[in-house]
Amino acid sequence: MIGAGQLARMSVAPAQALGVGLRILAVSPDESAAQVARDVWLGRHDDLDAVLAAAEGVDVVTFDHEHVPPPILQALLDRGIAVRPGPAALAHAQDKATLRAALADIDVPQPQWAVVSDIADVTAFAERAGWPVVLKMSRGGYDGRGVWVLDSASAVADLMTTVDLAAPAVWLAEEFVRFDQELSAQVARSPHGQAVAYPVVRTVQKDGICVEVIAPAPGLTAGESATAQELALRIAGAFDVTGMLAVELFHTDDGRILVNELAMRPHNSGHWSIDGAMTSQFENHLRAVLDLPLGDPRPVAPHVVMVNVLGGEHPDLYAAFKHIMARDPGVRVHLYGKQVRPGRKVGHVTVLGRDLDQLLERARHAAGYLTGTITE
Amino acid sequence: MIGAGQLARMSVAPAQALGVGLRILAVSPDESAAQVARDVWLGRHDDLDAVLAAAEGVDVVTFDHEHVPPPILQALLDRGIAVRPGPAALAHAQDKATLRAALADIDVPQPQWAVVSDIADVTAFAERAGWPVVLKMSRGGYDGRGVWVLDSASAVADLMTTVDLAAPAVWLAEEFVRFDQELSAQVARSPHGQAVAYPVVRTVQKDGICVEVIAPAPGLTAGESATAQELALRIAGAFDVTGMLAVELFHTDDGRILVNELAMRPHNSGHWSIDGAMTSQFENHLRAVLDLPLGDPRPVAPHVVMVNVLGGEHPDLYAAFKHIMARDPGVRVHLYGKQVRPGRKVGHVTVLGRDLDQLLERARHAAGYLTGTITE
Repeated sequence: MIGAGQLARMSVAPAQALGVGLRILAVSPDESAAQVARDVWLGRHDDLDAVLAAAEGVDVVTFDHEHVPPPILQALLDRGIAVRPGPAALAHAQDKATLRAALADIDVPQPQWAVVSDIADVTAFAERAGWPVVLKMSRGGYDGRGVWVLDSASAVADLMTTVDLAAPAVWLAEEFVRFDQELSAQVARSPHGQAVAYPVVRTVQKDGICVEVIAPAPGLTAGESATAQELALRIAGAFDVTGMLAVELFHTDDGRILVNELAMRPHNSGHWSIDGAMTSQFENHLRAVLDLPLGDPRPVAPHVVMVNVLGGEHPDLYAAFKHIMARDPGVRVHLYGKQVRPGRKVGHVTVLGRDLDQLLERARHAAGYLTGTITE
Repeated sequence: MIGAGQLARMSVAPAQALGVGLRILAVSPDESAAQVARDVWLGRHDDLDAVLAAAEGVDVVTFDHEHVPPPILQALLDRGIAVRPGPAALAHAQDKATLRAALADIDVPQPQWAVVSDIADVTAFAERAGWPVVLKMSRGGYDGRGVWVLDSASAVADLMTTVDLAAPAVWLAEEFVRFDQELSAQVARSPHGQAVAYPVVRTVQKDGICVEVIAPAPGLTAGESATAQELALRIAGAFDVTGMLAVELFHTDDGRILVNELAMRPHNSGHWSIDGAMTSQFENHLRAVLDLPLGDPRPVAPHVVMVNVLGGEHPDLYAAFKHIMARDPGVRVHLYGKQVRPGRKVGHVTVLGRDLDQLLERARHAAGYLTGTITE
């Protein structure tokens, strides 16, 4: 696995259980997964020699992020090493303009969009789609970075003159979608095309960062849920995805489901599955890239709530354990071994059961206490 | 953790999730836990220098087996290192004669027993308890080794002259209990006395080796279950156990519950809890020895079935994955990274759900296919 963040870290346990060797390519030995994996190689994901050295002798290469440059992916393939998901599929997760065009080709509902290169383009787009306009860098953004909501041509001008857009990224203008909730539809897909769909979940973002996930998404009709799952399965098939695919969706005020973005790897919206599903997204990602039959994605409880632990004022998360565990024996705590910095995802908590309101209170309390925003 | 078998291996994942450092003392780098843990020290558990070196700088020492000699445990305590469970508690798991006497002291129901040193002692015991007699080495046996069922004085004579009993072990004679099922009652207990009880499970042994566990034990009344849990909690308190305690019990033909043996560590009878309980025995063992509040031990499904994978003819367990995973997406597979040898515990499978008969068929099929006793 190239990349050693928390997604790689949480892949270690299912690999151990399956008795499968998992080598991690980490930039530094302090990274989240490098702290816990037995087989760690040091090197950058954009360093061809480092990637080739780490890939020597493995059966398949996969990723905990989408940032490996396509020429490096191709070099792996040229040496006969399986890369899953492959470069053609990954392009849709690496570049939002590529994604928009590909989704349009397969008639998937999405916000209005246009590749723009100057203020005139954005203004023309806004005449069709209305203000505000969402302006995005096609590459390199994550967790809300690289995305701006702008309500006038002058705001666009300010932004475009101050942000340095590194090629091959382009500017993408998108319709500002009025939604009542954000959803994520996750599927796992194997090289030979078997796929399983997780329940569609509600994701709650704050300042562009996912803070909370509810599985399954409350208030969604069975028909809407099936529509979202079908969309994700269709995209996985059309783009030939191998491994986990997360399709982030808007559920609009007027009841439409539109594709926002996607990720081809385990995703924050699926962390609930470690404790809350028969087979976690991390295990199904491994099974998919190993071309093993996929595991049952169904939840083990009526409701599962995951709340992220974002870095706050307290550097010592362990010190909070006594309080949160004594208050709530059912809370499942996952820490990523990352140094606490304000706003950084340093862990998550999960609870599961029958009463959604209680679960929300419990999970928010535990995460808030770990974060330091709740003190009793 | 001293010892690097599968119990240590399965402790690695919850330590990772909690962000707790777990150092393993392994005899060889090939051992089950040594293959997956990041922090492995090599050395024997009965080598004072090796144990002291590995324990340098840790907060607490615990175990994946009961074989660390008491002088080494004392040496750790003398250096101010917490040992959990402590040597006084562990003595009950290390020596069956010590256990029998201590259980008698606290009026816990158990088979009739006597320490015996010659044939005359055994014959005298058999006059009270009847033939056959169970003869045990007080120390050193496991998985059925060191235990014999003998039905005559001459059989006793044959055994006692051929088996070399290494001091400080003694011979223990026990009543042959006619039971309709064997049970295990597991509790976790903290240094400050908090304890939680897992559901009482049925264990099925074959040739002295646990082959199958059903949680909760079918056919047990609520009263019997409460009795068994209360016994385990009472023993944990009386012996000042820290960590997991498994109390193996006989449910006799005439409805009594008698204590057979106990283990002060995670135990084969609790492997179901990884996938089937809110908090696994491995996490609760860590929480207990770290003096953290204990996690919810309740199951997440009405029935959970665990079947051990015993080594058979097929050395390549992974080759069986495609078949068992395709047949049953819900089966949870756990391999221990151990070389396959006939009869050796090399992994286990777990299934959970509502229909016990179906679960038994599914788990036995998956384990049998991995073992090689089932071929389709």
